[in-house]
Amino acid sequence: MPDLDPDEFRRLGHAFVDWVADHRARITDHDVQPAVEPGSVRRLLTDGALAGGLPETPQPLEELLRTVDEVVVPASTLWQHPGFFGYFPANASLASLLGELLSGGLGAQGMLWSTSPAATEVEQVLLDGFARALGIGEAFTFDGGGGGSIQDSASSAALVALLAALERAGGGAWRESGTDGRERVYVTAETHSSLAKAVRVAGLGARALRVVEPVPGTVSMSPDALAAAVAADIAAGLRPVMVCATVGTTGTGAVDPVRAVAAVAAAHDVWVHVDAAWAGVAGLCPELRHVLDGCELADSFCTDAHKWLLTAFDASLLWVRDATALPRALSITPEYLRNAASESGAVVDYRDWQVPLGRRFRALKLWAVVHGLGLDGLRAHLRGHVAMAVDLAAKVRAEPGLVLAAPPSLALVCLRADTGRGPEADDAATRTLVERVNASGSAFVTHTVVDGRYVMRIAIGAVTTQPEHVAALWQRIRADSAALRREPVQPTA
Amino acid sequence: MPDLDPDEFRRLGHAFVDWVADHRARITDHDVQPAVEPGSVRRLLTDGALAGGLPETPQPLEELLRTVDEVVVPASTLWQHPGFFGYFPANASLASLLGELLSGGLGAQGMLWSTSPAATEVEQVLLDGFARALGIGEAFTFDGGGGGSIQDSASSAALVALLAALERAGGGAWRESGTDGRERVYVTAETHSSLAKAVRVAGLGARALRVVEPVPGTVSMSPDALAAAVAADIAAGLRPVMVCATVGTTGTGAVDPVRAVAAVAAAHDVWVHVDAAWAGVAGLCPELRHVLDGCELADSFCTDAHKWLLTAFDASLLWVRDATALPRALSITPEYLRNAASESGAVVDYRDWQVPLGRRFRALKLWAVVHGLGLDGLRAHLRGHVAMAVDLAAKVRAEPGLVLAAPPSLALVCLRADTGRGPEADDAATRTLVERVNASGSAFVTHTVVDGRYVMRIAIGAVTTQPEHVAALWQRIRADSAALRREPVQPTA
Ligand SMILES: Cc1ncc(COP(=O)(O)O)c(C=O)c1O
Ligand SMILES: Cc1ncc(COP(=O)(O)O)c(C=O)c1O
Repeated sequence: MPDLDPDEFRRLGHAFVDWVADHRARITDHDVQPAVEPGSVRRLLTDGALAGGLPETPQPLEELLRTVDEVVVPASTLWQHPGFFGYFPANASLASLLGELLSGGLGAQGMLWSTSPAATEVEQVLLDGFARALGIGEAFTFDGGGGGSIQDSASSAALVALLAALERAGGGAWRESGTDGRERVYVTAETHSSLAKAVRVAGLGARALRVVEPVPGTVSMSPDALAAAVAADIAAGLRPVMVCATVGTTGTGAVDPVRAVAAVAAAHDVWVHVDAAWAGVAGLCPELRHVLDGCELADSFCTDAHKWLLTAFDASLLWVRDATALPRALSITPEYLRNAASESGAVVDYRDWQVPLGRRFRALKLWAVVHGLGLDGLRAHLRGHVAMAVDLAAKVRAEPGLVLAAPPSLALVCLRADTGRGPEADDAATRTLVERVNASGSAFVTHTVVDGRYVMRIAIGAVTTQPEHVAALWQRIRADSAALRREPVQPTA
Repeated sequence: MPDLDPDEFRRLGHAFVDWVADHRARITDHDVQPAVEPGSVRRLLTDGALAGGLPETPQPLEELLRTVDEVVVPASTLWQHPGFFGYFPANASLASLLGELLSGGLGAQGMLWSTSPAATEVEQVLLDGFARALGIGEAFTFDGGGGGSIQDSASSAALVALLAALERAGGGAWRESGTDGRERVYVTAETHSSLAKAVRVAGLGARALRVVEPVPGTVSMSPDALAAAVAADIAAGLRPVMVCATVGTTGTGAVDPVRAVAAVAAAHDVWVHVDAAWAGVAGLCPELRHVLDGCELADSFCTDAHKWLLTAFDASLLWVRDATALPRALSITPEYLRNAASESGAVVDYRDWQVPLGRRFRALKLWAVVHGLGLDGLRAHLRGHVAMAVDLAAKVRAEPGLVLAAPPSLALVCLRADTGRGPEADDAATRTLVERVNASGSAFVTHTVVDGRYVMRIAIGAVTTQPEHVAALWQRIRADSAALRREPVQPTA
């Protein structure tokens, strides 16, 4: 048998677990972001470990650990580093890795209920449990006629929600004749690009995207503007299909008024998808649950356990109010997948909730997280980061030469330089601040643009980020900002 | 910090590795397929481990292992059991699990090159290496202007190939205005349902699917019929966009004549996608490489490492001849993803090769497999199963009362009862044979329909399947078949 035997796996598995434990314990020995040139890893491998192509004969697997140490880690951005403040976090907690290990060990394919009943039902029970813990309403549970699923990503979740919306809007005609060019999908300028991608993938084309104006003075969707856009489109013979409301935009963490948006949508039978990819998990904490106000009115609601909820990628949680909506849009059954359980209608076949046929037992990692840390642990994780953000925002407000570029949202703080010398000087200074933080190696931040201004985004949320890491970041930003105010600013881009 | 600390992880990680080692070592203590009723796992959990909802406080993670033993394993179809002959295999080799552990340990998001350079470049090097090892041609390597990627599934691979085809066919107009109802996609009656699903997801509707007639006496696509269908569609003002040729159909492992199909497609600039989800990996063995004849002419080629190539789900390998094709179809860049490396054009950003934005470092599990087992190990795995299938097919041929329902293909054998009492009696007998094998607990097979006849599919390919497991299966089928010939047949469906 070409695979390892179980005892070899036991020995090597311990060594690999130790490697992970050591890597995580010493992660701050490394810079958060590596300084590597495009092509350098390929060159190192094709000149080194993989010179001559893939190995013909078995090689010691311990050797792979050495290559990973020598080639991979030095060329990796360390998303698990406590100084990682870029994008949104990608929490790969150690607890979740234990669940992944079980999932790989079982090696089940959960495409149908019948191809591994436990894989489906554990997922159903956990998603019902999380719907209740988040407070999004009993209608999203299987017990309540809806149901949840683990998707690979919020992008895929948005796509399948759109497909369900198309199916509903066209009464199924879409399955036979496709899109007709009249469908319209409503977003804002701040909506994540995955919605534009879903619209493209679904064959609607960019012309189907309606970018609704914000409430004046904010970036949040204006329900009045939405109502006007929907009415105008209907009058023009177009077909409003879906509106996406965002809870926690990627740029600044802004929240669309879901309740009012849903009211507008309901009047025209438009599907409401809530993209709460990052922020939705905050609903676990009663004092933060206000961000989910109105979400119980949505047709579909998505939040990523793999961002800020301690679960290794991929684990995007998607609930729908109508458990039959996704299968109606997505099911196609060839002979070889027919089975008595599916035909009985008594089971959920998750392949019909997604594009891929095959399906891992992802619920185990989510289960390991909530079992090992408890909802209290998850709340402590979220609350800790929110408190750090509140504290950081207060410091920014009090600091001359720096301003908040947007109201802080949960654990996201957006700031920029305020040089008093105009927008260009501000942008150049902010860009320099970002570069200096990232050049330090001990922290990593990314940027966005708010009102046309270059902005530093600080997304607090790595599993290991503690107040001292945010304090160290702040010391650096503050010192760099003070130094910049003493130097003449050199535009660097 | 709510997560485990590295030393707790070390201790628990060893325990979880031991659980996996023990589970695999004793897997034959369990039935391949469980006897469970819909809802029974949900009930066990909501009455037991998850009574009262998700746990509020941290629970010992060892306890999860007990619950998995008591609730999950007894309700799981054991795809890693040596008696698993259903569907196609889902090889979760122990070697690949070591790679998954590293991937989780690093916890990198490889959406952009810049978000973790090693994640992208290791994948590039491995996919170049596998393109060469499979013999599909230098044009599919990054060095040759094409390139490979790891997708979650062959279904998603087919979808993105179709999107690239739509982009190419419409010269990009599709991005703005979507599909126009004139696109046509060519398949056969045996093409996997994921193609019909991709056509639906992409907004073309079922009417866009042209089911091309087979070469008479076979189920393989007739190049002549394809040429006629394409010509007729063009004459009717329709737009042929893509043809999918299958290497190893799901039903019987049939192979479409890719070379001739590609020649027809080339004459009309139609995108050729090869779906070799299961069979493509056989190209690693020179003596089996004939199944890939002509694949070097395709625009995209997909084979699943997670089926028969020892790599835990998900790892579908997709190559395209033009490395810019997928990004042209799929790229949408919001401000927060802009970065110098992407703008330089010197790097691959794999988010633009797929629907999801986020991306795990899946290359590590593929690397662990080929490093630890060597190409020789992979070939031994494939050859072993092919030899078992050849042997089994010979036994079927020699057995009165049983016939091969299709020519055996690689490691797939399709058989049915031949009672001499007509099709209905044959179908009833075959159905009973399938049921009896599956009721035995020591083996699991699935069915398909060939020429309207109910057929038992035996897909040899689990990591641990050895000749004795196939021999035991054969003993049972043979004994059941002999017994059935003595009993009057009772239709059971
Ligand atoms: C609001 C929002 N939606 C969707 C996504 C896409 O996430 P995924 O990688 O899960 O597709 C993101 C990622 O940052 C996001 O911020
Ligand atoms: C020929 C073929 N194509 C595609 C697929 C879909 O596989 P996946 O689960 O990787 O989407 C299968 C699955 O059995 C298959 O046999």
